[in-house]
Amino acid sequence: MFFAVQFHFLLLKNIQIMKIIHTIKELRQWRQSVQSVAFVPTMGNLHAGHLALVQRAQSEAEHVVVSIFVNRLQFGQGEDFDRYPRTLEQDAAKLRDVGVAVLFAPDERELYPNVAQNYQVEPPHLQNELCGAFRPNHFRGVATVVCKLFNIVQADTACFGKKDYQQLAIIRGMVDDLNMPIKIVPVDTGRADDGLALSSRNQYLSATERAEAPRMFQQLQWLAEQVRGGNHDYVALEQAAAAELTAHGWQVDYVEIREAGSLNVARLGDKNLVVLAAARLGTTRLIDNLEFQAA
Amino acid sequence: MFFAVQFHFLLLKNIQIMKIIHTIKELRQWRQSVQSVAFVPTMGNLHAGHLALVQRAQSEAEHVVVSIFVNRLQFGQGEDFDRYPRTLEQDAAKLRDVGVAVLFAPDERELYPNVAQNYQVEPPHLQNELCGAFRPNHFRGVATVVCKLFNIVQADTACFGKKDYQQLAIIRGMVDDLNMPIKIVPVDTGRADDGLALSSRNQYLSATERAEAPRMFQQLQWLAEQVRGGNHDYVALEQAAAAELTAHGWQVDYVEIREAGSLNVARLGDKNLVVLAAARLGTTRLIDNLEFQAA
Repeated sequence: MFFAVQFHFLLLKNIQIMKIIHTIKELRQWRQSVQSVAFVPTMGNLHAGHLALVQRAQSEAEHVVVSIFVNRLQFGQGEDFDRYPRTLEQDAAKLRDVGVAVLFAPDERELYPNVAQNYQVEPPHLQNELCGAFRPNHFRGVATVVCKLFNIVQADTACFGKKDYQQLAIIRGMVDDLNMPIKIVPVDTGRADDGLALSSRNQYLSATERAEAPRMFQQLQWLAEQVRGGNHDYVALEQAAAAELTAHGWQVDYVEIREAGSLNVARLGDKNLVVLAAARLGTTRLIDNLEFQAA
Repeated sequence: MFFAVQFHFLLLKNIQIMKIIHTIKELRQWRQSVQSVAFVPTMGNLHAGHLALVQRAQSEAEHVVVSIFVNRLQFGQGEDFDRYPRTLEQDAAKLRDVGVAVLFAPDERELYPNVAQNYQVEPPHLQNELCGAFRPNHFRGVATVVCKLFNIVQADTACFGKKDYQQLAIIRGMVDDLNMPIKIVPVDTGRADDGLALSSRNQYLSATERAEAPRMFQQLQWLAEQVRGGNHDYVALEQAAAAELTAHGWQVDYVEIREAGSLNVARLGDKNLVVLAAARLGTTRLIDNLEFQAA
């Protein structure tokens, strides 16, 4: 009798049909019917990096909700909001295959019914540093939509990739500072065999650019190796890594060594460091980062 | 048997001991042990107006949480943060008498452990109008602390007085725009027999000022009566009401007729109106408002 019940339960779990939900109302109704939920917010066009987030989420809760929403608020003028790849059908198939409970795919009117988002989450000055210096209002848009999604999904846990390291820091800061009842789980960056960080924007790269792209991560590794080897001239190291990229046709936004927890500018004595970079190959902007320990 | 159980239940309810909780952690633990919660955020120094909020909250949920926190963020320089009356013991006694489940009374370090509140909720331009024009950053501070308290208490419902009409509008806007999972219940303003709106700040008034204070509400009633009688020269009416207060020794910040739902400036054709006023008697700033229908 006991085994029969167990077996039945497992069977039900395996044949769980993924729901695709488009409205906040329906999502809230579903939420009331389940206990623990882990959440993975995305902009779609899913790759192995996203699926690693889902896998991690599945280890955190009984049900996983993945959202797909290309958030206009976080794109600046002249950025790729319009051409950002929208591939809902293929994304849904991938999520169904890995056993996601709910794909939440609201349209713009559902999340921004007044067109303007009148109330926003305002992050501190970090929002204007690193990528924020090149993408005005980007992190305010990220924080605001994530706040909205957290309030809608009411998950116990949310998983974010370390690929977007500054985004992760801002989400963690927001959750902490606004006492949001959710646990944030960081997940390591997925990489191609040659080291290139997985990103939806990689598909914009020409074959030549794709061959060049792994140099960014190689430079981050080189820089971390230098610091671990005792070179503490952070400014010179940042400049050397940037110059190497520039020499190979990159337009570098920044290469910066920061304290990993706060993202403050790294100072001698800081142990936990991260080096972050952003640069363009042609019209495609790539970012990456690498955590490391000072010697 | 049935009656016995009923009786026992009622008895338990009546002798429910109010918990006084000072930490977020303990509040969250308690929250997990109960189902429905209604929430009344306050700055303490409780009067009959607050107790009406509590009573309304009790009709909304099984358990009522009242918070008492004098929120530094919403006080400007030169305002009465330091002299704001702190009367926790008397407040606790009042709340115990009316059967509140939890009094949540965190200290400043509990809500603002980093001293600075780095992530804030930024309301739209309404925050700089009406009272906001005279109290810079006030409504950002209100929205931010209410967001934090909502995330901590995780109530199903929260009750706010109409006395702070602009505050109510901003909380409702925030909840709506950020998709917060909570229902906001507005509660009518409690008044003394002579019409003066109940307020913790009334106790700052001298006997002479206290005798003068009801004139504000009388002017609001006069103005509403004029509009209902067909006078649609809103600007002249606002000026006349302000002049009457000024003539009796008030320093008037504003008297304004607004559309009740949006708090936009009232236009001909708007049906649901509210007239709001703020003025000082001596050093004490009083506010009041009155909803009414255009003729």
